[in-house]
Amino acid sequence: MEINGVTIDNTYAEAFPTWVCRVIITAVTEEWAYKAALEATGFATSAIGCPCEAGIEGMLTGDETPDGRPGCAVLFCASKKKVKEQVLERVAECVLTAPTTAVFDGLPDAEERIPVKLHFFGDGYEYQKEVGGRKCWVIPIMEGEYIGEEDFGIVKGVAGGNFFVMGENQMAALMGAQAAVDAIGGVCGVITSFPGGIVASGSKVGSNKYKFMPASTNEKYCPTLREKVADSKIPAGVTAAYEIVIDGIDEESVADAMAEGIRAAVMVPGVKFISAGNFGGNLGPFKIDLHSLFS
Amino acid sequence: MEINGVTIDNTYAEAFPTWVCRVIITAVTEEWAYKAALEATGFATSAIGCPCEAGIEGMLTGDETPDGRPGCAVLFCASKKKVKEQVLERVAECVLTAPTTAVFDGLPDAEERIPVKLHFFGDGYEYQKEVGGRKCWVIPIMEGEYIGEEDFGIVKGVAGGNFFVMGENQMAALMGAQAAVDAIGGVCGVITSFPGGIVASGSKVGSNKYKFMPASTNEKYCPTLREKVADSKIPAGVTAAYEIVIDGIDEESVADAMAEGIRAAVMVPGVKFISAGNFGGNLGPFKIDLHSLFS
Amino acid sequence: MEINGVTIDNTYAEAFPTWVCRVIITAVTEEWAYKAALEATGFATSAIGCPCEAGIEGMLTGDETPDGRPGCAVLFCASKKKVKEQVLERVAECVLTAPTTAVFDGLPDAEERIPVKLHFFGDGYEYQKEVGGRKCWVIPIMEGEYIGEEDFGIVKGVAGGNFFVMGENQMAALMGAQAAVDAIGGVCGVITSFPGGIVASGSKVGSNKYKFMPASTNEKYCPTLREKVADSKIPAGVTAAYEIVIDGIDEESVADAMAEGIRAAVMVPGVKFISAGNFGGNLGPFKIDLHSLFS
Amino acid sequence: MEINGVTIDNTYAEAFPTWVCRVIITAVTEEWAYKAALEATGFATSAIGCPCEAGIEGMLTGDETPDGRPGCAVLFCASKKKVKEQVLERVAECVLTAPTTAVFDGLPDAEERIPVKLHFFGDGYEYQKEVGGRKCWVIPIMEGEYIGEEDFGIVKGVAGGNFFVMGENQMAALMGAQAAVDAIGGVCGVITSFPGGIVASGSKVGSNKYKFMPASTNEKYCPTLREKVADSKIPAGVTAAYEIVIDGIDEESVADAMAEGIRAAVMVPGVKFISAGNFGGNLGPFKIDLHSLFS
Repeated sequence: MEINGVTIDNTYAEAFPTWVCRVIITAVTEEWAYKAALEATGFATSAIGCPCEAGIEGMLTGDETPDGRPGCAVLFCASKKKVKEQVLERVAECVLTAPTTAVFDGLPDAEERIPVKLHFFGDGYEYQKEVGGRKCWVIPIMEGEYIGEEDFGIVKGVAGGNFFVMGENQMAALMGAQAAVDAIGGVCGVITSFPGGIVASGSKVGSNKYKFMPASTNEKYCPTLREKVADSKIPAGVTAAYEIVIDGIDEESVADAMAEGIRAAVMVPGVKFISAGNFGGNLGPFKIDLHSLFS
Repeated sequence: MEINGVTIDNTYAEAFPTWVCRVIITAVTEEWAYKAALEATGFATSAIGCPCEAGIEGMLTGDETPDGRPGCAVLFCASKKKVKEQVLERVAECVLTAPTTAVFDGLPDAEERIPVKLHFFGDGYEYQKEVGGRKCWVIPIMEGEYIGEEDFGIVKGVAGGNFFVMGENQMAALMGAQAAVDAIGGVCGVITSFPGGIVASGSKVGSNKYKFMPASTNEKYCPTLREKVADSKIPAGVTAAYEIVIDGIDEESVADAMAEGIRAAVMVPGVKFISAGNFGGNLGPFKIDLHSLFS
Repeated sequence: MEINGVTIDNTYAEAFPTWVCRVIITAVTEEWAYKAALEATGFATSAIGCPCEAGIEGMLTGDETPDGRPGCAVLFCASKKKVKEQVLERVAECVLTAPTTAVFDGLPDAEERIPVKLHFFGDGYEYQKEVGGRKCWVIPIMEGEYIGEEDFGIVKGVAGGNFFVMGENQMAALMGAQAAVDAIGGVCGVITSFPGGIVASGSKVGSNKYKFMPASTNEKYCPTLREKVADSKIPAGVTAAYEIVIDGIDEESVADAMAEGIRAAVMVPGVKFISAGNFGGNLGPFKIDLHSLFS
Repeated sequence: MEINGVTIDNTYAEAFPTWVCRVIITAVTEEWAYKAALEATGFATSAIGCPCEAGIEGMLTGDETPDGRPGCAVLFCASKKKVKEQVLERVAECVLTAPTTAVFDGLPDAEERIPVKLHFFGDGYEYQKEVGGRKCWVIPIMEGEYIGEEDFGIVKGVAGGNFFVMGENQMAALMGAQAAVDAIGGVCGVITSFPGGIVASGSKVGSNKYKFMPASTNEKYCPTLREKVADSKIPAGVTAAYEIVIDGIDEESVADAMAEGIRAAVMVPGVKFISAGNFGGNLGPFKIDLHSLFS
């Protein structure tokens, strides 16, 4: 299959279940909501080495937030235990501390709930108040008063949706990946948790040589090893590959993001080949077929 | 003491020792160095609830980096054990994974050293190479090759340098704090680790009411509690306060950042009072007197 | 009338007809579309001293552009003669020269059309090609090939929609104005052409003292002149005012932007009063009443 | 000559005299100084079709500005008559109108001076005041008071310093050009006036086919015309070229910027060839030889 002259590999992305929490951060201006969201979603690229995966889903206008201020929707993805702990810590350390912010539950219809009890920070001076129909706690702080909900929905979502952007050289592949990330920015319900949304060093599970490593370079996808390893997956003419990893609130959003991302990447001159990562289908229950995205 | 009509409180900031590691991240463009640095220094506002404190010290031109590419200097601050673990994890998850990055030791003269052994990720395909006089490992990855040093200097620095910007209303205090952060951006050797560099909810150690809390709101500095608590430190006419917290490689850098920050904050209309946080001088060995900064 | 405790003055904004051209700029990534759009819409705040008024209406995803790439919608506002000349010059100098850009007509249904004939730049090497159903010219250039439509729709729109954000001090008023601009960013069909969307020095027509001046400071709205001029329009307790000026493709869009902007501004602490500018209703055919926006 | 494996053509850039005015814009924060500077330097890529050439020279800390606030240094380049007219109009429309700005002369030692008389806008309410040793006018405006100098130095500088970045494909050449612009950002005394600092469509004087055109595509440097025109200057293996055009306060600054830019561009993978534009040396008095930059 080809789109815009670029081959779409006949393969699928293998993805996994994850718990997802959506936090709405509002602030006096878009900029301050964004700065708090950036801090709260940092050091959160991959569950392998980070305490969770997190990212900014999108910016929100005042019409879309409970308190009528501009905001930012953020997704946190991890196991149920981890998501509970990480949302609490990240909101406490990175949002409650940020200028003018408030936080609201972004999944009010979810049955599963987690507590995010920040009001103890108020040391007894805190009190309850309804804001935009939401039951919030108000905590006196140095800038004035912090307002936040303390009960958040979580849903079973999908982590590890992915595709590979391969190019005739590194800059072509990188700009293809960037165009993909731009396009995914317009899709609801998903994040790309890696730096700038792009993975430069996709990994395989475990290591052949160093048994203590939980993950190591995926040599079959390393262009400089093309002639050195058996079964290289790097097509002729490709000298660089980037992976886009997508987490989302459901399989449909992740598939939609993959389709939008691939459509954008193939528009970039020098992008040659699109593929996706899987583990033979034995591990993840979600198999998102590339060709089916475009049929 | 007054500067530009703003009262500078007769007090001092109490600060504490910390270990500091400086990592130089380079990339194909400034933008990509910055994106990797942002991810690597996220979720790192306060050692109370984050695994470390971290931030961007400054951008570097190609003349200032070992490989001649644009870069970003990043500081990580924590206990020796934590700094070792966090620099490894954050470089592995947030920089090795980021497009086109390389990492170099930013404190080559420091006697104390920590290992950041990423080369096992190469699964045996890695090799050594000298870049800009630095002994590096080259790891084949999907985008091509990652290059990085694996031995980093750490020094005993200073954490918790601080001052308070108080204003006649919230927006004046916030813009004063922003102007301070802008100015501190021009000082070498320091970071402001909180979101956008500003703390909206400065805390005290422990809690009077909730014994299980390690920290809670500093009610003496809460403007809305001014009439409700004894010994409020909020002067008449102040309705909002922000704290700027500064970590640095030595006391001189932190003091310099405090001076530059305060000089900038008092230029902002509506800023009324500058103070600083201390614990009576019993805890931290560093006492940075506000008035001495300007004499 | 009050919203969120802020008085909305019982007055109206007086606005004027203008011709409006919408240009769609696409590029390899959002960033490059944005950079071209920024350059093309600079030096275009006010028709009084700039050759036109211009601004960025919004970012577009690949689904919304003729060539499937990310883009930016830009509005140029001026008299018919000026809009013709300015769109040609600005696209030629600021978009054709920018990396990877293409331009498309953003008002394909408009009856009134203007030519933007850039293909002569091709010196005979240019050729025609259909892209996304649009008849384009392809011009060989140093980066490869530039693609663009050369026939653009223009419509009779509305210039000078406006409101004033007044605050108890300058920073409160400024952040209120910023929140308004953020909110207007979500409204289709409008731009705010001043720097950052905000006017610090609203003017009156002509000058009382200097007869050669086409415009001068609007002393009735100058807070520092409140006690010095007769009929000051600055309410007690206000020490700063900003004007938000809105141009749009029709009266409805402009009114919608005014409503969204005011709703956002009144959420900012320290904002005290919202008014609007008019000339007694003798000049502009459009009178947009503030109270009617919220009824 | 080769640097980092990239051929540096044995040629020179031909540049021309221009008058240059440096304006220092300060504001309450870096961001507001930057926003005003962006607007003031827009629609100013090339003297061929824009009223002047302009750009941001660099950001300034409070230690570097007359009023101690953060700022931005901006250069305006044109003939003496045009520079006079353009600085007046651009400061009046894009800086006086911008929130919290002040302007100061950035070339106080220059003998040649131009007036920028904005104080008539004050309609008689304006008054004089010394700020940071500079004689300024204060104009009452809606946000409070605008402060600015009205006498600016201009010097005879150099326009049209340039080099070409050629790549094996478009994205490699573009990222090479971007790296060059990043590096030039660190050089004092220069600007790159095109969108994002990069020219995608370098031109030749006049047109062979369309006699009414003052400039047209430089077909000898068009990669898609390599086989169609005689004497193509595009080397084998190159499919895209970008031009970096530099204006500066003197020849040394421009040469320095060229050297820094080229050094950065050749670090980017896929960049193959560096050249420069000249007209046979008959026109411009400045001939900046590429090889001499590195000897």
